[in-house]
Amino acid sequence: MNMNLHEMGKQARWAGRKLASVASEQRTEALSILSEKLLEHAEEILEGNGQDVQRARELGLSEAMLDRLLLNPSRLQGMSDDLRRVAHLPDPLEEIFEERVLPNGLRLHKRRVPLGVLGVIYESRPNVTVDVVGLAIKSGNAVILRGGSETIESNRALIRVIHQALMEAGLPENCVQWIDDPDRKYVYELLQLDEFVDLIIPRGGASLHEFCRKNSRIPVITGGIGICHLFVEESADLEKSLPVILNAKVQRPTVCNALDTLLVQRSIADIFLPEVVRLLGDAGVSFKVDEIAWDILKDYQGIRISRAQPEDFDTEWLSLILGIRVVNDLEEAIEHIAQHSTGHSDGILTQNTALAEKFVQRVDSAAVYVNASTRFTDGGQFGLGAEVAISTQRIHARGPMGLRELTTYKWVVEGMYHVRS
Amino acid sequence: MNMNLHEMGKQARWAGRKLASVASEQRTEALSILSEKLLEHAEEILEGNGQDVQRARELGLSEAMLDRLLLNPSRLQGMSDDLRRVAHLPDPLEEIFEERVLPNGLRLHKRRVPLGVLGVIYESRPNVTVDVVGLAIKSGNAVILRGGSETIESNRALIRVIHQALMEAGLPENCVQWIDDPDRKYVYELLQLDEFVDLIIPRGGASLHEFCRKNSRIPVITGGIGICHLFVEESADLEKSLPVILNAKVQRPTVCNALDTLLVQRSIADIFLPEVVRLLGDAGVSFKVDEIAWDILKDYQGIRISRAQPEDFDTEWLSLILGIRVVNDLEEAIEHIAQHSTGHSDGILTQNTALAEKFVQRVDSAAVYVNASTRFTDGGQFGLGAEVAISTQRIHARGPMGLRELTTYKWVVEGMYHVRS
Repeated sequence: MNMNLHEMGKQARWAGRKLASVASEQRTEALSILSEKLLEHAEEILEGNGQDVQRARELGLSEAMLDRLLLNPSRLQGMSDDLRRVAHLPDPLEEIFEERVLPNGLRLHKRRVPLGVLGVIYESRPNVTVDVVGLAIKSGNAVILRGGSETIESNRALIRVIHQALMEAGLPENCVQWIDDPDRKYVYELLQLDEFVDLIIPRGGASLHEFCRKNSRIPVITGGIGICHLFVEESADLEKSLPVILNAKVQRPTVCNALDTLLVQRSIADIFLPEVVRLLGDAGVSFKVDEIAWDILKDYQGIRISRAQPEDFDTEWLSLILGIRVVNDLEEAIEHIAQHSTGHSDGILTQNTALAEKFVQRVDSAAVYVNASTRFTDGGQFGLGAEVAISTQRIHARGPMGLRELTTYKWVVEGMYHVRS
Repeated sequence: MNMNLHEMGKQARWAGRKLASVASEQRTEALSILSEKLLEHAEEILEGNGQDVQRARELGLSEAMLDRLLLNPSRLQGMSDDLRRVAHLPDPLEEIFEERVLPNGLRLHKRRVPLGVLGVIYESRPNVTVDVVGLAIKSGNAVILRGGSETIESNRALIRVIHQALMEAGLPENCVQWIDDPDRKYVYELLQLDEFVDLIIPRGGASLHEFCRKNSRIPVITGGIGICHLFVEESADLEKSLPVILNAKVQRPTVCNALDTLLVQRSIADIFLPEVVRLLGDAGVSFKVDEIAWDILKDYQGIRISRAQPEDFDTEWLSLILGIRVVNDLEEAIEHIAQHSTGHSDGILTQNTALAEKFVQRVDSAAVYVNASTRFTDGGQFGLGAEVAISTQRIHARGPMGLRELTTYKWVVEGMYHVRS
């Protein structure tokens, strides 16, 4: 099939304008209907998903990949519940802010409006289809979806249900469009549609982000890649620090906000590092350590430890590996983070409030932590209700992007036939 | 000379980090020093500018171009005054916002931080060099400048003075770097530096914006192009509307917020249009009108009027030309604006508050006006103190971009050794 992306873009722009003009209740209603329909149509969705899983198995995809691909009744229920939750979040489009009256009497305010049309490019998780649609519709944005080729039958079934829900809610079905051809050329074509698409959100690995940044004429949200650090400063409560480090590393090692490198101040390294490797080693972690840590730890039995290579400190592990480096002081820790962090989530463990403030001031990451696990960087955990991505770029939005981050504003200027002199 | 843009980027990143960490007073001081130095070094700046102007004259550039290029003592005084004003604006980096305590006791807030490194690509106005440097330094951003080849000697002199001011203020001179080679390949190279540059701000015509959007790996602010509309609804106070239309069209016709197309409701067109063309015609305006307006106006003497071609309603005039179209009602006006506006500044003139609200709700431009001239879309007029650009894109910032729009935020999360469950 030869898809006409220009036409899709045009339709999306039109549908987005329509969506932006309807009442809050209608958008909420669409999500509630979809939430129900996911369960009513469970059979056909799971059947489509079954075909995808079978093909993936035939292609020899890893168990981890199969797990990401898989839908089952309880996962569908979870998707349905999430939609209902998003439906009942406050409407971001009702916000009016920065009201003021200028000296000449002009009345100014900003009014929150949808971004317009989102282009979302993702890989093998079919739940992303529903997550993204929920956030987009709630925030008044049309969306063009481009899922992975592995999920084509799951997405086909989901999109059918989504279109039914939109129609029942009285919204144009082109609010949600799907590029159902896995040919990669359509990703490129989507990235050229700057006339109709306002923001590209890639959800996937580094190479997808790189491809989008290189080829897009549309702003791209960069994110999802976290080389995360915790620095244990000498005043830290070491006993309380251990569970934080453990949590940051092992609670869910495959995600972007998991810990990658532990920095420990020299003065406490001799007593603290053995405790770290014992606790985390028991949890299955292996360690890539610098020379000083090596000297401290090399004689310990039963831990998986090796000397860190230079590139190890620039690696997002996404697994039970932890880099360890000993630093002399806060300054050296900040410098290491500046050199190696991806600006996602970095923290300090300390009892010294002045040093904590210095760390917060100088470390320029989307989320900077004092005495907490990096695992909290998440739209749900931060109280945003949900997230469409975690941005590590600097413009528009940083960190978890929820409903508000899918909006922009317009300036409204009200006068009494004012002229500029 | 062969410039090493990678090295410039690296230096800019380093200098930007330094700049972001100094006290507010030091950034303010740098601007005050520069403000003085511009006057102290007037002679060498004007001499450099004289060389540029002479070369431009030899090349046969238009008087309008020469005027944009020209510096003189009073313009230098203006630049110096503007810098002093920006120096004393509130520091955007002192803002802390969205503070909250989560149910688990984690304390969250957002802290405003600089974007980092700006890449600014502009054309023939040497005052942009100083404007941009003032806003960048005040907001804690390093900047790489790429001015037009016409202004090379003016910029050489200005950059020398800027570097002296930075050094006297104790700031690294690499906070401001200048690509002093007019070879266009360096624009392209700058657009590839996504490792070191956080935002590209083009200031120039449509082709420069197009080139940046097409080639940049870095987010680009699109803006500066305004096809602006005023719709005169039948309830408007026509006598008061005339000076607003006049102001929007003729007060400064060469800028992006000047009026391009006037939409007039059918029911008042017969009585109102003759008054419009008489008043604006006396001010030197000529008109491109649709068929209905033509029928109304064709027999009037002494006005320059012609039938509009379809592309005329997609033209930013930047001169004393006005498109006129007669529409049946608000709906048709909104539809015309949706089709032809660049999303810069559009307004309605009306006494009907319900229709005004409908217009504000449905017209999705950076600035939407009720009963005021479109000429107010400007950082100074909106009370932002100054502006680096007027954005017509939808992400990050819309409309006039002042100091705050050159910043982002970090999330700061403070816990008591919190772990995620």
